[in-house]
Amino acid sequence: MSKQSAVEPPVLGGDDAVAPCCPPLTAGELSAQDAERMAAMFKALSDPVRLRLFSKVASHPGGEACVCDIADVGVSQPTVSHHLKKLREAGLLTSERRGTWVYYAVAPAVVAAMSAMLDLRTTD
Amino acid sequence: MSKQSAVEPPVLGGDDAVAPCCPPLTAGELSAQDAERMAAMFKALSDPVRLRLFSKVASHPGGEACVCDIADVGVSQPTVSHHLKKLREAGLLTSERRGTWVYYAVAPAVVAAMSAMLDLRTTD
Repeated sequence: MSKQSAVEPPVLGGDDAVAPCCPPLTAGELSAQDAERMAAMFKALSDPVRLRLFSKVASHPGGEACVCDIADVGVSQPTVSHHLKKLREAGLLTSERRGTWVYYAVAPAVVAAMSAMLDLRTTD
Repeated sequence: MSKQSAVEPPVLGGDDAVAPCCPPLTAGELSAQDAERMAAMFKALSDPVRLRLFSKVASHPGGEACVCDIADVGVSQPTVSHHLKKLREAGLLTSERRGTWVYYAVAPAVVAAMSAMLDLRTTD
């Protein structure tokens, strides 16, 4: 069990808050702990199939999609489930069961935090 | 050899251009080819030590650092070299030898492209 959920999603202040774990990478040296947390988020997007699934959810109207809408990425259903679980564990997607289907939605604050980390613009 | 350099950096129009490979993830479904390319960039940042090295370069004055300035991340010099090579192969860092030392610099266009991919703001 500990192996499956070793990575905790970042602590967030709310839907629009940027995770306090995620300063821009230009802000200074990362602590080892922050680096672990941030690397886990990038790792969630480091697989092409996972990235396609994430993109399918993100580009779906409302940023939410039924698993039945997004499973067509050329891999088996168990593999799709595995990848969606990884995205959920990394905090990038949330999920909710409604009737027969599970619906996935982008966690905007976490994704915004990742984007902000890579925003290297400076004021000089 | 082919194993080491399977991933090509994205094609860029110039230092300030955003890689044409990298639409925001909300823009639509990713092609399999774009997903491969983008996943490789995220993979480069999916290791905590690599992320710390990248952050050290990015936060160094001028966005450039000598390998002698950044090697203190608690791993051996060959491991540092290995990680810097991976970041270079993914297109996130550039390198230049000057005298004894190799200097690494952030490739701002590639990093900006990654940030833009994760910019999920919509106009609605």
